[in-house]
Amino acid sequence: MTRPSGRAADELRPVSIEVNVNKYAEGSCLITCGGTRVMCTASVEEKVPAWLKNSGQGWITAEYGMLPRATGTRVEREAKKGQSGRTQEIQRLIGRALRACVNMTALDGITIKIDCDVLQADGGTRTASVTGGFVALYLALQQLVHQGKLPSLPLTDFVAAVSAGVVQGCPVLDLDYVEDSHAGTDANFVMTGNGRLIEIQGTAEHEPFTKAELEQLMSLAEKGISALIQQQKSVLGV
Amino acid sequence: MTRPSGRAADELRPVSIEVNVNKYAEGSCLITCGGTRVMCTASVEEKVPAWLKNSGQGWITAEYGMLPRATGTRVEREAKKGQSGRTQEIQRLIGRALRACVNMTALDGITIKIDCDVLQADGGTRTASVTGGFVALYLALQQLVHQGKLPSLPLTDFVAAVSAGVVQGCPVLDLDYVEDSHAGTDANFVMTGNGRLIEIQGTAEHEPFTKAELEQLMSLAEKGISALIQQQKSVLGV
Amino acid sequence: MTRPSGRAADELRPVSIEVNVNKYAEGSCLITCGGTRVMCTASVEEKVPAWLKNSGQGWITAEYGMLPRATGTRVEREAKKGQSGRTQEIQRLIGRALRACVNMTALDGITIKIDCDVLQADGGTRTASVTGGFVALYLALQQLVHQGKLPSLPLTDFVAAVSAGVVQGCPVLDLDYVEDSHAGTDANFVMTGNGRLIEIQGTAEHEPFTKAELEQLMSLAEKGISALIQQQKSVLGV
Amino acid sequence: MTRPSGRAADELRPVSIEVNVNKYAEGSCLITCGGTRVMCTASVEEKVPAWLKNSGQGWITAEYGMLPRATGTRVEREAKKGQSGRTQEIQRLIGRALRACVNMTALDGITIKIDCDVLQADGGTRTASVTGGFVALYLALQQLVHQGKLPSLPLTDFVAAVSAGVVQGCPVLDLDYVEDSHAGTDANFVMTGNGRLIEIQGTAEHEPFTKAELEQLMSLAEKGISALIQQQKSVLGV
Amino acid sequence: MTRPSGRAADELRPVSIEVNVNKYAEGSCLITCGGTRVMCTASVEEKVPAWLKNSGQGWITAEYGMLPRATGTRVEREAKKGQSGRTQEIQRLIGRALRACVNMTALDGITIKIDCDVLQADGGTRTASVTGGFVALYLALQQLVHQGKLPSLPLTDFVAAVSAGVVQGCPVLDLDYVEDSHAGTDANFVMTGNGRLIEIQGTAEHEPFTKAELEQLMSLAEKGISALIQQQKSVLGV
Amino acid sequence: MTRPSGRAADELRPVSIEVNVNKYAEGSCLITCGGTRVMCTASVEEKVPAWLKNSGQGWITAEYGMLPRATGTRVEREAKKGQSGRTQEIQRLIGRALRACVNMTALDGITIKIDCDVLQADGGTRTASVTGGFVALYLALQQLVHQGKLPSLPLTDFVAAVSAGVVQGCPVLDLDYVEDSHAGTDANFVMTGNGRLIEIQGTAEHEPFTKAELEQLMSLAEKGISALIQQQKSVLGV
Repeated sequence: MTRPSGRAADELRPVSIEVNVNKYAEGSCLITCGGTRVMCTASVEEKVPAWLKNSGQGWITAEYGMLPRATGTRVEREAKKGQSGRTQEIQRLIGRALRACVNMTALDGITIKIDCDVLQADGGTRTASVTGGFVALYLALQQLVHQGKLPSLPLTDFVAAVSAGVVQGCPVLDLDYVEDSHAGTDANFVMTGNGRLIEIQGTAEHEPFTKAELEQLMSLAEKGISALIQQQKSVLGV
Repeated sequence: MTRPSGRAADELRPVSIEVNVNKYAEGSCLITCGGTRVMCTASVEEKVPAWLKNSGQGWITAEYGMLPRATGTRVEREAKKGQSGRTQEIQRLIGRALRACVNMTALDGITIKIDCDVLQADGGTRTASVTGGFVALYLALQQLVHQGKLPSLPLTDFVAAVSAGVVQGCPVLDLDYVEDSHAGTDANFVMTGNGRLIEIQGTAEHEPFTKAELEQLMSLAEKGISALIQQQKSVLGV
Repeated sequence: MTRPSGRAADELRPVSIEVNVNKYAEGSCLITCGGTRVMCTASVEEKVPAWLKNSGQGWITAEYGMLPRATGTRVEREAKKGQSGRTQEIQRLIGRALRACVNMTALDGITIKIDCDVLQADGGTRTASVTGGFVALYLALQQLVHQGKLPSLPLTDFVAAVSAGVVQGCPVLDLDYVEDSHAGTDANFVMTGNGRLIEIQGTAEHEPFTKAELEQLMSLAEKGISALIQQQKSVLGV
Repeated sequence: MTRPSGRAADELRPVSIEVNVNKYAEGSCLITCGGTRVMCTASVEEKVPAWLKNSGQGWITAEYGMLPRATGTRVEREAKKGQSGRTQEIQRLIGRALRACVNMTALDGITIKIDCDVLQADGGTRTASVTGGFVALYLALQQLVHQGKLPSLPLTDFVAAVSAGVVQGCPVLDLDYVEDSHAGTDANFVMTGNGRLIEIQGTAEHEPFTKAELEQLMSLAEKGISALIQQQKSVLGV
Repeated sequence: MTRPSGRAADELRPVSIEVNVNKYAEGSCLITCGGTRVMCTASVEEKVPAWLKNSGQGWITAEYGMLPRATGTRVEREAKKGQSGRTQEIQRLIGRALRACVNMTALDGITIKIDCDVLQADGGTRTASVTGGFVALYLALQQLVHQGKLPSLPLTDFVAAVSAGVVQGCPVLDLDYVEDSHAGTDANFVMTGNGRLIEIQGTAEHEPFTKAELEQLMSLAEKGISALIQQQKSVLGV
Repeated sequence: MTRPSGRAADELRPVSIEVNVNKYAEGSCLITCGGTRVMCTASVEEKVPAWLKNSGQGWITAEYGMLPRATGTRVEREAKKGQSGRTQEIQRLIGRALRACVNMTALDGITIKIDCDVLQADGGTRTASVTGGFVALYLALQQLVHQGKLPSLPLTDFVAAVSAGVVQGCPVLDLDYVEDSHAGTDANFVMTGNGRLIEIQGTAEHEPFTKAELEQLMSLAEKGISALIQQQKSVLGV
């Protein structure tokens, strides 16, 4: 099988992560994965939500949005119609993924809000948001350390995400929009630097899949996430 | 480890499925899984959504709700505050799961809406909704066959769902609320009668998990789903 | 005239009240009046709304909902479209009716929320909600007495409700859906154990009614409510 | 007992009805009942709601609102917070009351919307809205007759409304705000010119009431409504 | 050119301002400008919004609404559909205009809400709202002075507003609805008693305008505003 | 006076306009004015709104949004709270401004939606949106000409916008956020290539302004807009 983009089955799209693209945010980056571009910012507030008061814990949460013309056909602005179920599902995933690598006790008294806004969408916006959102989060945490508000980075590991799916019977890594539309199975993986799973979401779009297929997808994802974390480390200089 | 309920690690909670509990719905059941009770109805409409007009396809969708006092602490009614992200995420899952086992072309011109309303919640409401929702759907499809509106059941297989998780380091099947609150990893599985996967959602609640753990959870789920499908068949008399 | 159900003009539908059907609620029952089934729960909170702070009074309020397929034709979920005027009108009625038999000063510092959720509707859902809601309230108050949080039941009387209407020129008690659709006049009565009125709502659906007709309906209602209160006392063991 | 206003128990407040106060509306009046002032307009549309298409029937509906400073303490604008349950309950009542005196078949193809906007509130806004709304409706129907769009007025009778209540143990007619706040029982009556009832709503605000009290209130209401209908006829010149 | 109303190009419509038309509001007036009638009330609260706490400043804000049949064709009630962009734009303008003439420091601890509700609209509702809103504000401030809550009126000047536009090539003052619909350029001016500008909003409805035209409109506006402020002073007796 | 940025009173901030930054939109640009960055896209639909059906006219409309961290302090996402009055006011202005230079008859059957999303805000976001929105619109119209769907560009002139204000007593051009916060008067100008006005909005933020000051601001704006239109023409190659 030849992929529409000509990529090998286990090949990521070209990825770039430009850091500090927003002059106000405590951490920010613009992540580009092929035709998908997501602006990620991390905003620090030195307080916690009411339900965490006096819990000895901080909080990290995420919000996700798409510009109306991020897609081939313009979609109505969520400011006019409210957030869709898809948007809420995605932002809950991003938040869970990023919380899983942070020591919330060390973050006591601090809330960090990660905003992931899709400027252009071509498949994989939620995984790009996790990967880019982690970079923005890292930069914000680093600034807190530099300001002496945290003694050290309260991170347990790096985190990145990627999709994999079965397209025309073949397992492939990092689906673009065209592949995504025709995938029989579509799965998203969030993993850590040491290869552990934070989240796995596999869905049969057209027909049920086997455990063997799931394992193949997971192997592809491991490879892709490892490369993404290399790139995160590179742009962060660590 | 002893489970709070005294169950074995691979033991489901007591399950009952009472069919035809609603005198209006084309299909209905009340599914009870331990302390979790969900009313499932299937409503048939002989038309399709606007975006499927002239597509030659039918449609199945699901909605999910909880009565305000389904939980230990009363939660505000969604009719007053709107559907939460969690609700939308769950009903999207139920819809996807049920669509995956139906031949949509054979359902041309028909929409079936599955309502899953939680009367009492004690963990696993989304998986009980899938398992019970399938029974309601089956009954509605059966009625369409009896009425001569469908030549045969447009189903490719049975579908059920169950959760599994790592609680205090041990993989266990079918978590109740107490276990769910303390699980390190929580996963939901939707599978077919022939053991294929329709959906897998695994989440690290407290710390990342390994592929080996995921495989253990999947094995537990396979066993549980097989038993649930036996029970579906039994109450449906097939 | 023969009623569609074959009942006598002054005959209630078969009524059953199953108590303690919810393991979390401080009081609960499932009331069945013919084809109408309503789940009623009472939830106790040991605080009062902001506007009653330091007033020396407690508070009782009610909320009402219908499952989407409680009716012959599925209705859209209020969680998606907001509460209708009809819903708000009904829950305001239930709340007023239940407050009228409670000594609010004796309830100081306590709020009780009554949720009435219609599982199946066949006429008379608002009156069944009042009758069942009173049972749930009674059980919750009883529990507060047992816990020593109230010295005695702060109730001044029992409360139940029933409908009566003029159908094809004949006054009849406790209309089911078919009768309700054809009634010229429809009235709902909320009364106490000693035969006093808490609320009366009479509406000309098709043509104005006379004082004489209203009196006939009131007499039917008195009889019906007396029987309902007997049944409440019986299930409560008082 | 002396009423705060010095009125006799069976005495209405001074009422005035100024007609044609809006240059656009097909019918309009400003009704003043003591300190309560309501602007009523009737708007004719030559079409019916979708659910009445091809039914051979017309439609009448009402909407109710209050200016923010209609009351002693400013209330938040419903345009900002949505319509309250109270508002919806009232506008449903007004609509039912006005529909009850119109032959809907004779109104085929026509919708009339009655808007009742309270400029100043001092008790009895819903009954003033019915009484004034009827005048606006009458004027709009009259215009349709003059335009040859209706052969004759499709009215079966006049309609007006008034409140009565038990205040400090005494039944009194037409409560103002101060009396309303202290009433033990509060009832609203909608009646026709020939003395029949269209709607009765009686509520125990503080303690249950007897049938005898209800009858006393009804007698007061009959007297008041009779006088209000005289006044309607006078301003309409019939 | 003859104006539809027969007015001279620099002639205002007949204006009347009736003060103290609401028995609850601290200040109120009904302003009539030709066929445009706006009820203006000023409501005093002795507190400030949260974001002004401890700022040493008071606050003035305005809200605007239209009764559904204020216009030739009935418009849907904003209580049902939410406030339109037009409404929000207008009420923001009214608020800014009135704040510009008040010393906010002198108003410390006090919020005044100006409600402008259009009973009938015939062009120029926003400018009539500013002119009438100022009168309501003045009366409320006067009352605060009389009550000893303010040492003196915290006003720096009078404020009024008027429109001017280019209709069929001619600059004219105070457009009514018919003129407004055909204006090539439409401008609103808010000015003070000493002839300074508080707000200018000029819009090319059909084709761009020149600086010279803008100056002509401004001259017309100066004349009109001067007359309106005379009338404000007259009804306020100053 | 020295401006915080060191600019001369009549000096624009550095402006760049990068075209075709979105691979889906029919026209797009990223406009940067100092620290303000706005993504502008034009989306073509070959249909018109319902109210323009069969009118022989096309339509242009605009929507505006800000990413949550476009500002120094993160603001809540409008998808969660709905569009503010400010947002609606701005997008109405952008739409009016762009419609004023297009021949709507020549655009018959076509709607163009301009989305202006602020990635970073540092004053002047509405004027940058007009200037950038015009470029996106131009590109989309050019594509329609190239596709043979329009015979020629239906534009009557170029359009750009800029702010000017009185800061510390001095009239200055193109205020950044710091200046805007301290401006006594703030005005926005939309003008055409031949120096005519499309829109002028001048507001006294702290104290009223004179006609002379307004004229000074207008002169500054003319100079700035002339330069901006030069830059538009340059990036468009015309």
